Amino acid sequence: MFEAAELNRKISREVYDEEVPRLRAELLRVQRELAKRADFKVIVLIAGVDKAGKGETMNLLNEWMDPRFLENNAFGRPTDEERERPYFWRFWRTLPAKGKIGIYCGSSWYSQPLLDRVYGRISGEALEASLVRIRNFEEELVHGGALILKFWLHLNKKAQKRRLRSLARDPETRWRVTERDKKNLKRYDRFCVAAEHALRATGTGGAPWRIVEGKDERYRSLTCGRALLAAIDRRLAETEVAPEAAPSTAAVVEPPVEAGLPTILSTVDLTQRLEKRPYKRRLEALQGRLNRLARTAYRRGVSTVIVMEGWDAGGKGGIIRRITPAIDARHYRVVPIAAPTDEERGHHYLWRFWRHLPRAGHTAIFDRSWYGRVLVERVERFATDAEWQRAYGEINDFEEQLVAHGTVVVKFWLHIDKEEQLARFKLREETPYKRYKITEEDYRNRERWDDYEVAVNEMVEKTSTAHAPWHLIAGNDKRFARVQAIETLCTALAARLGKKK
Amino acid sequence: MFEAAELNRKISREVYDEEVPRLRAELLRVQRELAKRADFKVIVLIAGVDKAGKGETMNLLNEWMDPRFLENNAFGRPTDEERERPYFWRFWRTLPAKGKIGIYCGSSWYSQPLLDRVYGRISGEALEASLVRIRNFEEELVHGGALILKFWLHLNKKAQKRRLRSLARDPETRWRVTERDKKNLKRYDRFCVAAEHALRATGTGGAPWRIVEGKDERYRSLTCGRALLAAIDRRLAETEVAPEAAPSTAAVVEPPVEAGLPTILSTVDLTQRLEKRPYKRRLEALQGRLNRLARTAYRRGVSTVIVMEGWDAGGKGGIIRRITPAIDARHYRVVPIAAPTDEERGHHYLWRFWRHLPRAGHTAIFDRSWYGRVLVERVERFATDAEWQRAYGEINDFEEQLVAHGTVVVKFWLHIDKEEQLARFKLREETPYKRYKITEEDYRNRERWDDYEVAVNEMVEKTSTAHAPWHLIAGNDKRFARVQAIETLCTALAARLGKKK
Repeated sequence: MFEAAELNRKISREVYDEEVPRLRAELLRVQRELAKRADFKVIVLIAGVDKAGKGETMNLLNEWMDPRFLENNAFGRPTDEERERPYFWRFWRTLPAKGKIGIYCGSSWYSQPLLDRVYGRISGEALEASLVRIRNFEEELVHGGALILKFWLHLNKKAQKRRLRSLARDPETRWRVTERDKKNLKRYDRFCVAAEHALRATGTGGAPWRIVEGKDERYRSLTCGRALLAAIDRRLAETEVAPEAAPSTAAVVEPPVEAGLPTILSTVDLTQRLEKRPYKRRLEALQGRLNRLARTAYRRGVSTVIVMEGWDAGGKGGIIRRITPAIDARHYRVVPIAAPTDEERGHHYLWRFWRHLPRAGHTAIFDRSWYGRVLVERVERFATDAEWQRAYGEINDFEEQLVAHGTVVVKFWLHIDKEEQLARFKLREETPYKRYKITEEDYRNRERWDDYEVAVNEMVEKTSTAHAPWHLIAGNDKRFARVQAIETLCTALAARLGKKK
Repeated sequence: MFEAAELNRKISREVYDEEVPRLRAELLRVQRELAKRADFKVIVLIAGVDKAGKGETMNLLNEWMDPRFLENNAFGRPTDEERERPYFWRFWRTLPAKGKIGIYCGSSWYSQPLLDRVYGRISGEALEASLVRIRNFEEELVHGGALILKFWLHLNKKAQKRRLRSLARDPETRWRVTERDKKNLKRYDRFCVAAEHALRATGTGGAPWRIVEGKDERYRSLTCGRALLAAIDRRLAETEVAPEAAPSTAAVVEPPVEAGLPTILSTVDLTQRLEKRPYKRRLEALQGRLNRLARTAYRRGVSTVIVMEGWDAGGKGGIIRRITPAIDARHYRVVPIAAPTDEERGHHYLWRFWRHLPRAGHTAIFDRSWYGRVLVERVERFATDAEWQRAYGEINDFEEQLVAHGTVVVKFWLHIDKEEQLARFKLREETPYKRYKITEEDYRNRERWDDYEVAVNEMVEKTSTAHAPWHLIAGNDKRFARVQAIETLCTALAARLGKKK
């Protein structure tokens, strides 16, 4: 795979000097156009062998382009805020907004798995799992409208050795040669094997790898610059790429549920009730238990993510208000999800949820969540078919990362029937201090009950996974629902913390 | 001062039980109104003596109110990302947006200085300086439209001792008594002396302290709840408090400069030039020097903040593009300042600059900056007189914090004259790839040249401080300006790093 990058390709100074001014002007032009339209973002990954010119290439691109619309990223040791979240959090938080170019140089999401494998810290299987995750991550970004360019700068072993030696000779550049470099050089062959494998596994149609010979600086620079120009130019020419046009990965659309046949929602027994007295007793006991569990989780640095979804007037707020008193207010945050802010609109739809992930030991309660993508956005057609269909996989992947990081994920669907909803709407209208809760929109949503029912059934079917199952709560009786929800939460926490009932 | 909080005030269970439901309904009402109007934010500080019920009060307020519009904050050991910025960064980043309530419980901006003093780690003078900073911080927030409530929960020594003992007896609460508590108890008297002093020094009209007797839980809870309700209610009643109405701290408006008299700007010798050949030589040498200095700064964790201000077409971009190639692209970020995003509009105008402060060793280049407040916002009347007049002090305070943290702050004003500007406008219009840079707005701004001149002169006069002086760059000759600016930057860096030329 790398042989094609050991051909000693060179570009003469004359050709280079003639080409560069034109290239720079063109790069500035597309950059300006990109910033003006701001309908997609560009992510440039510069990876490769040590000393193959990754840093130099990044610096050069910065020199050639307008630094105001460029963001450069490199990652050293994760900060403690980063360590307390899943691995990809640090990458999500640095993603450029639409209209900008983000350069990821040297260390990126590829570095840790690759080096871990080269140094034998992880198995081949674990590397495979990391590569799948990376593929998913990049695919999501591409589907979200990002243009991704991945450069792999190659240098054969001899050339690398020579480069290190010449850097070490010059007192001005000696600092660039580290012990680490020498150690890596010894593992050169092993590194190339792992890298080749990684490149093959992650070179997708949407985010292909470009292997660039790193030996000749002029060749390397021009090649990268031209590729970047061509890619942005091509994308700009695709007048207003509607994301609809993107190929759907979830090709099959489930036919709507046939009337009369049992659905997942129809299995919920809505007649379940709880009387006031046993309710009070059980609620108090459960809150005490939740309090102890939450304290243990805090002490041990175990985070919790609670997802609250359900029908309008299903009782989400009431459950949240029964959960929060049991947790120290310093350790939870309720995140109400409404329309995205304009900063959030400049990013992938999952970005705003990544940004609210709790620190170690803390709890985030999402009052509505990323499931909006496959519920309201699907039903109201805010998202295209391809978008919401693809979202199931994206969401499963997101939650899997949370669980793999050690986070407890608990998802509730507050289920009530249509009659109960109407009764609650009426009651709200009659109660002065609840009237604000009821709007025209609630009635509009109600008219689409059947569409929502199809969406909810499909959502549960496709996203109730072993690591993050859905809990359907029978909500017609508020007391029953509250006790059931808190008990479920306690059970999930206890299981994670290895505590018995 | 605390005697009034040792009166054994109690509230009976009957009174409490009757009052609470009313209070909760009212709190929910004002909270809803606040969220709907979203024209101011509420900051609730719950401080006080150990075990006086700070956490309990916060938890209770969370129980009483809608947790979706509440944000609770408590601060433990700073994270490494926090330690790499000035002390107040961690507080700025957690400030609630308009329409929300942020509760700061226990540890807040008061904690570190107070405890440092009690444990003898800082002098009385240093405490004084911290209190001044806190006062400024709160005053800025108040002027920015925040409603600040500060509760000090008091408990006398005997009561505190008793509380600790009873907590330690119960196995359920024993974990709440730490070694730290016991150590603090020994310093109770010293703590009260320092606290009294701090309360007096920071109890301003805009953000007064409310001392609350902490002994009786019902009394404490009702007192805080009622005060919060009353304060929000009063503020809501002040129909649409225009910030204009806020008292101005900078009372005196400088009269406009008399024609003919020398001004700060008029002292800049715009005839200074540099020929092409010496320019090339010097630029290259300076970039080399800057590169070495930047590397040293990175290694030592010294951050740099560069402010680029100047006339339209003054040459800011050209200088930025000469600075950036000298710094590793991984270690700087250019922050272009345009119209604020809607998230930024929900905060104090300085908030968006705080959020872009660089990590240790990194450089942030602000292409336009917080000085917009006293330039374009003043001239175009986007800010009221009181707002821009107050901004001088706020900005000085902000920059002083940067410098005190060890950051190098370098501020440039790119000065050209009116004729040169016109010539550059014309040139831009004639050059195809520069045409995008020139808009109607540039000509409109140009018509207000004289107003801007007054504003710039006053800005330099009031914000050129010993720790962060303004550098006026003679910009009519681009080559001269670039060399002068980079040289200035090098000198500032060298001085901070203790390097000779």
